[in-house]
Parts: sequence; C-alpha cells; structure tokens
Amino acid sequence: MTRTYQLTFLVGLKSGILDPAGQATRNVLQHMEYAVQDVRIGKWIRVAIQADNAEHALALGQEMGQRLLSNPVMESFEVTVKAL
Amino acid sequence: MTRTYQLTFLVGLKSGILDPAGQATRNVLQHMEYAVQDVRIGKWIRVAIQADNAEHALALGQEMGQRLLSNPVMESFEVTVKAL
Repeated sequence: MTRTYQLTFLVGLKSGILDPAGQATRNVLQHMEYAVQDVRIGKWIRVAIQADNAEHALALGQEMGQRLLSNPVMESFEVTVKAL
Repeated sequence: MTRTYQLTFLVGLKSGILDPAGQATRNVLQHMEYAVQDVRIGKWIRVAIQADNAEHALALGQEMGQRLLSNPVMESFEVTVKAL
C-alpha cells in the first residue's frame, strides 16, 4: 500500500557563488529605503509522490534532487517530507 | 537599537494559475519512472534586514512582498521572520 507524500525542495546557489538576481533585488530594496544588507534568491519545488512510507519518499526525494532538480556543480538543495 | 532579522519569502503562482515549468518537471520525473502526481515551482527570497523587533521586520516584509517581491496579479507570497 502506497500513500501520497509532499516533498518540498529548497534549491539555491552554493554559498560561495555570486547571486546576481539577489544583488539586483538588494539594490532596488535599498533604493526604496529598506535597511537591507543581503538578499539571496533560489527556487522551491513541491512534488506530490506515491511512496510506501515517509523514509521511502525522502530517499526518492534525495535521488530526484541529485538527478534532476538541482545542478550539483553550482547548487545545493534540501528536501523535507510531509504526509498528505 | 535595531538588530538583524532574516525574512524568508515563498513566492508562487496563485493556485488556479497554470505552472508550465512545474508540468514540464512532472513530465520528466514521470519519464524517469518516479510515481509523481503534481509539481509546482516557485521562488524563495532570503533578506537580511535591520529592524527594531520581529514584528517590525515582519511588517516591512509584508510591505516589500507587496511592493516588489511578488506580482500581485499572478502570485501570492508568505513571509516568515527569524532573528539572526
């Protein structure tokens, strides 16, 4: 019996890597007079998946994150699981 | 005295709106034989900001989300705050 789990991936540039979109956003916020020091931007991905249990869903999530959902050269990701 | 807070925005297309990037990702994951039903993609934005207290930081976050960080026609956002 499988059930549905929701995986949430947070994918972002590795910490040493320049984030031009974040810098542009920081500059605009500063011009709008917000006391902002740093901005980083990344993407979230929510996946509904069938799995035997939460551990299985999370293992599939780690695999999908490495194979497709992140670029391992420039990006890192974290994935969390929740039963739906 | 102000201190630094981290705001985290999760911005995404409103729920009725088609997400072509999510659909394309779902199709690829299905071809890779993952039992995936639905995929939605959005962005996260992390902002370090000076504020008097957490409530003030969150109020600034709501304002920034509406004025700059989301497109109110197509997107919704949620923002959370954490002391740094």
